[in-house]
Amino acid sequence: MKIVVLGGDGFCGWPTSLHLSQQGHDVTIVDNLSRRAIDIELEVSSLTPIMPMGTRLRAWKEVSGKTIDFQLLDLAEDFEELRSLLRELRPDAIVHFGEQRAAPYSMRTPKAKRYTVDNNVRATHNVLAAVVAEGLDPAIVHLGTMGVYGYGWSGSAPIPEGYLSVKVPTPDGDLEREILHPANPGSVYHLTKTLDQLLFAFYAKNDGLRITDLHQGIVWGTQTPATSRDERLINRFDYDGDYGTVLNRFLMQAAIGHPLTVHGTGGQTRAFIHIRDTVRCVQMAIENPPAPGTRVSVFNQITETYRVVDLAKLVADLTGAEVAYLPNPRQEAEANDLVVTNDRFMALGREPTTLSEGLMEEVTEIAGKYRDRVDTSKIIARSVWRQGMETSPDLV
Amino acid sequence: MKIVVLGGDGFCGWPTSLHLSQQGHDVTIVDNLSRRAIDIELEVSSLTPIMPMGTRLRAWKEVSGKTIDFQLLDLAEDFEELRSLLRELRPDAIVHFGEQRAAPYSMRTPKAKRYTVDNNVRATHNVLAAVVAEGLDPAIVHLGTMGVYGYGWSGSAPIPEGYLSVKVPTPDGDLEREILHPANPGSVYHLTKTLDQLLFAFYAKNDGLRITDLHQGIVWGTQTPATSRDERLINRFDYDGDYGTVLNRFLMQAAIGHPLTVHGTGGQTRAFIHIRDTVRCVQMAIENPPAPGTRVSVFNQITETYRVVDLAKLVADLTGAEVAYLPNPRQEAEANDLVVTNDRFMALGREPTTLSEGLMEEVTEIAGKYRDRVDTSKIIARSVWRQGMETSPDLV
Repeated sequence: MKIVVLGGDGFCGWPTSLHLSQQGHDVTIVDNLSRRAIDIELEVSSLTPIMPMGTRLRAWKEVSGKTIDFQLLDLAEDFEELRSLLRELRPDAIVHFGEQRAAPYSMRTPKAKRYTVDNNVRATHNVLAAVVAEGLDPAIVHLGTMGVYGYGWSGSAPIPEGYLSVKVPTPDGDLEREILHPANPGSVYHLTKTLDQLLFAFYAKNDGLRITDLHQGIVWGTQTPATSRDERLINRFDYDGDYGTVLNRFLMQAAIGHPLTVHGTGGQTRAFIHIRDTVRCVQMAIENPPAPGTRVSVFNQITETYRVVDLAKLVADLTGAEVAYLPNPRQEAEANDLVVTNDRFMALGREPTTLSEGLMEEVTEIAGKYRDRVDTSKIIARSVWRQGMETSPDLV
Repeated sequence: MKIVVLGGDGFCGWPTSLHLSQQGHDVTIVDNLSRRAIDIELEVSSLTPIMPMGTRLRAWKEVSGKTIDFQLLDLAEDFEELRSLLRELRPDAIVHFGEQRAAPYSMRTPKAKRYTVDNNVRATHNVLAAVVAEGLDPAIVHLGTMGVYGYGWSGSAPIPEGYLSVKVPTPDGDLEREILHPANPGSVYHLTKTLDQLLFAFYAKNDGLRITDLHQGIVWGTQTPATSRDERLINRFDYDGDYGTVLNRFLMQAAIGHPLTVHGTGGQTRAFIHIRDTVRCVQMAIENPPAPGTRVSVFNQITETYRVVDLAKLVADLTGAEVAYLPNPRQEAEANDLVVTNDRFMALGREPTTLSEGLMEEVTEIAGKYRDRVDTSKIIARSVWRQGMETSPDLV
């Protein structure tokens, strides 16, 4: 298949691109390299030394014999270039990771809020409008987030995969309806993913586009079999307070002897998935698109759920690290339950990677190997949800 | 009160600005004049000879003694200028009409789709982000649309004012929840108003902004008491296939001897409101903002509902015009019922203007007076919802 990976330079996009290329697909990466630009803005770097795109692609060619093309293109701005590219390639599938993806960054400043909305909404809409304008019918696979649902909204009912069955009272009795699960985003970033859902629903209905939305949990891990093949292919590892994800941050903190930073009570329950599974799931989504004329296909791309405090204890027990309870810069419930349905997702035949000592040690080893690259002043999360909220000073 | 009217040069914005000024408020209009620019693009003009903003404001000063300020500013682009303006004025209320508002235009071309999304979403988000960044607490009143709900979704249950009560089945029995009515937009334009709803919900929750969303029906009529005071104050009257609204188009067509253009069966039921009521409703919304920390306040700003074919017959009976049934360029149900709740809206104490011969004649007279300005090649609606849909040739 000819596959375009939008945002193919990022934490999920890069290993997905390699995985799809490894599977024999003809992959073109489209990226504006904004994630690297934001590193410059935040004065922080990936813990792992990621290579420039040219080096990455040459290394991939060397180790695999396969060619991946790269187009430097801003999805939100360069609509005509995007159209030309699609016209030329006529891809069988488009994987869309091309969005600003950090909740804390999206709340950091007015400028970052605006960038997140302006970039993400326009990128998604431009992709849909370009596909329609060119009369194409690719499988479109988008990375959503579990955060569109919010937490603790539906009591003991598990969060469904996208669509919620409800009864609507009418004068003639209850009407059963399946609705898109009500949106309960917790940040501007999550908000943009709820906007994406409405864009997808409209273009599926009006234009018959075949779209899959993968509501992914928090990704952990760094490497996949493909990114491990050469050090120049190494995936990025974000440890800072804006882009770092919680479990990877704990493992990095343990590796450098920093207390594990639990912001708030740690009672937040979240869903998790390993990066190895992300890439396989995207592949399965591409191979199982919805039928034309049907609604958007939604999967909950998660493997297991944990309370943040339990994750911290797990890592502390494994490594002897201390746990530090810090002020929470987010506006969120102190604690929540989280029961999630992922039956459709599991039915695709995946054998999921669960949290295990061996895998966590792999991450800790990577963190240990590159520990000299850590800037400890970047560890504490300080992007506050509202002006004036308390944050912690550096711990070391 | 100090009031900023965003989009104060448009069909609803201009008479609202005059009405609020007339009431003694201190009004500043913000507009990028994009509606006039789109007239140039579409090679069509308002049936009524609207004056440049400078002339409008001088005429208003002459007849009322009141000053309205004007800032030429693009909400989607000029964020820092918007912030400066809000910092300087510290308005008590912001009325937000600053969006591309025609469904057919929003489906016309890839460029128009993109303009509608890029302009509307960014404009709304910039306003919210600017208010938060400046630490202000104005009453924010936004013009939404009845089109966010879709038509015929909830059977015999009336469409509620924004929030729908549903029962969510759980292992422990049904859970009652009030949710934002599921979004069922029928065009890219309507889609943007459903995106606005999610933006508003988030900023109300996270930042405590006080927001009212007025889901308005189709507006008819041209003049209000204020715009009638001087010909230089005349409101715009759109009759073309993209921007003209159905009843005004019928009245214009009757006035020039053109068949009344029913696109499709005419079985579409829609909600209507007179422009006189729009301006009063906005005033009432400003005077009755939601309490801080509460959810977005939603009103269904409509007076009555009609089937399109019944409206055509009404106008035909009144004027002797013929009715022409033309291909429908929209993808929509051939017919739908529409039962709408507007209790909260009516409780504000409005005495609504309903369809009456006298009022319709006023519009017909305006159309008759300016009939020489009609370009009959602009009457047929030809912006199609999907490529290849049939459209009608000119009838005269």
